[in-house]
Amino acid sequence: MIGSGSWATAIIKMLGDNTVDKSIFWWIRNRETADYIRNYRHNPNYLSAITVKIPKRHIHTDIRTVIEHADIVVLNTPAAFLKDALKRVPNEAFQDKIVVSAIKGIIPDENQIVGDYLQEHYQVPIDRIAVIGGPCHAEEVSLEKLSYLTVASKNREVAALVASLISTRYIKTNVSDDIYGTEYAAILKNIYAVAGGMCHGVGFGDNFQAVLVSNAVREMAHFVNTVHPIARDIKESAYLGDLLVTAYSQFSRNRTFGNMIGKGYSVKSAQLEMNMVAEGYYASYCIQQICIKYRIDLPICNAVYNVLYGHQSPIVEMKALAEQLT
Amino acid sequence: MIGSGSWATAIIKMLGDNTVDKSIFWWIRNRETADYIRNYRHNPNYLSAITVKIPKRHIHTDIRTVIEHADIVVLNTPAAFLKDALKRVPNEAFQDKIVVSAIKGIIPDENQIVGDYLQEHYQVPIDRIAVIGGPCHAEEVSLEKLSYLTVASKNREVAALVASLISTRYIKTNVSDDIYGTEYAAILKNIYAVAGGMCHGVGFGDNFQAVLVSNAVREMAHFVNTVHPIARDIKESAYLGDLLVTAYSQFSRNRTFGNMIGKGYSVKSAQLEMNMVAEGYYASYCIQQICIKYRIDLPICNAVYNVLYGHQSPIVEMKALAEQLT
Repeated sequence: MIGSGSWATAIIKMLGDNTVDKSIFWWIRNRETADYIRNYRHNPNYLSAITVKIPKRHIHTDIRTVIEHADIVVLNTPAAFLKDALKRVPNEAFQDKIVVSAIKGIIPDENQIVGDYLQEHYQVPIDRIAVIGGPCHAEEVSLEKLSYLTVASKNREVAALVASLISTRYIKTNVSDDIYGTEYAAILKNIYAVAGGMCHGVGFGDNFQAVLVSNAVREMAHFVNTVHPIARDIKESAYLGDLLVTAYSQFSRNRTFGNMIGKGYSVKSAQLEMNMVAEGYYASYCIQQICIKYRIDLPICNAVYNVLYGHQSPIVEMKALAEQLT
Repeated sequence: MIGSGSWATAIIKMLGDNTVDKSIFWWIRNRETADYIRNYRHNPNYLSAITVKIPKRHIHTDIRTVIEHADIVVLNTPAAFLKDALKRVPNEAFQDKIVVSAIKGIIPDENQIVGDYLQEHYQVPIDRIAVIGGPCHAEEVSLEKLSYLTVASKNREVAALVASLISTRYIKTNVSDDIYGTEYAAILKNIYAVAGGMCHGVGFGDNFQAVLVSNAVREMAHFVNTVHPIARDIKESAYLGDLLVTAYSQFSRNRTFGNMIGKGYSVKSAQLEMNMVAEGYYASYCIQQICIKYRIDLPICNAVYNVLYGHQSPIVEMKALAEQLT
């Protein structure tokens, strides 16, 4: 496991509660955090109620040691920090390994989803890559609330293997071969959650929120069917479900971030206040670049971009957006 | 306007705020309520903040007088009470009138949606019938929150006419020719909201709720495409949006009702406590009969039926349902 945020901590719990025999190694960037977890078996920063069931000696602050030990590497840093985390990792480090992305974001500067980034920069073959998606707030994993994850890979056997390692009595898994659709949907939904938060922040109600989300899933379908046209049902849990849990849940940091922007906070002050990365902020910029490249018109994503990066007023932009929805 | 519940009161406000010249007549069953509204221009029971902009003499407790005055009759009682409300209305009363159903429910005993009931029992031709649907809680109309309604009729001119009379600065309208799909979706969503409430009541979280709703919209598509197969996009606001606002909003009485059942209240005690009709309760029974007739398998509706009418335990039934979802 590469990364020690809330989603990484939640997957550490799933892997530990799952009954398949395995050794789990965990890379934690920060030395004090690693020491704390070694000493107290709890993550001091995220989901602190979870008991970490990993031997002390499997917790490392050197990323290369962890990757060397692994047959399956789970990448789980914020997308914005992945490049930096991997900078000391040699290109051939991932050879013969399965690489799983639990990151729901786009690599900045590259404007690539993690799957594409791994193929291009680390020569990981596509059939050794998997993505974990699906409607799942980490906070509810901590509470052992019944949740459904989707594991996608071009290689169904790889998807099934990864799914078999994270299934528990409270985690059900679906497998899918739509690695691109699953990854893009997971990224887009964060932007839509920011949009939902902005609309709430400027004073729109639940009736409008429902219209926004039903337009968002159509917009999502348009995007993924353009950049990766295969047969898929966007109403499945990995796409629509993931959008719903993010757009409607009280736990969504993207929605909270959007709400603060809608209420008039600047991007900087909202980020400082939250002390968490809202992936939707970075995703907004990257998706905008991809839309320009593919000439895709996404009114909701465009409105979010205009507020976050174009210094437009959220109230003006959301009212203009409302005119375009049906 | 036939009926004086919260949705009727909300549409009275829209009609009043809409700038097209018109006379509005309102049938109110209860004499004290009618007197109160005549005297104080507010509905004492629902959305009491709304000022009723109708002349006193247009408020009647005799339903025939109101229908006689009307070119367009808006039916807006609970579905369970429509037959009783219309029992003194002669068959020919609707001749040459446009009849609009704002009822989101099925006529008990008949197992008919309002459109079918009007055709069969009152000989109203289908091209004179319209349905008002769309994601809209009455409470938010009272607050003038931006909302979108869909007016559906086989006759697009009729739909456009009705839409032109309820549009206001806070109400946007779409028109549609899918009268059956709009009406059935509006009914089914109440059952799904009951299901969502039950799942919450038995302790499932937001992650599961997202899976439930994304399965529900697929189940809804399966139902309407079976009973009325025409080309439609179930992701539009009138279908998916309506489901979302009901399943996720704090204002939803169906969700509240389901939640109480999930927590262990009996149907009777939940109904007494709420002092409002949860349409989903009646809809569950009627939709079950239609499913048997068409041999449609709807796992979520079936689970709700088993709890409400089959005396099954909500926790057992919802856990069994969870096994069937993806």
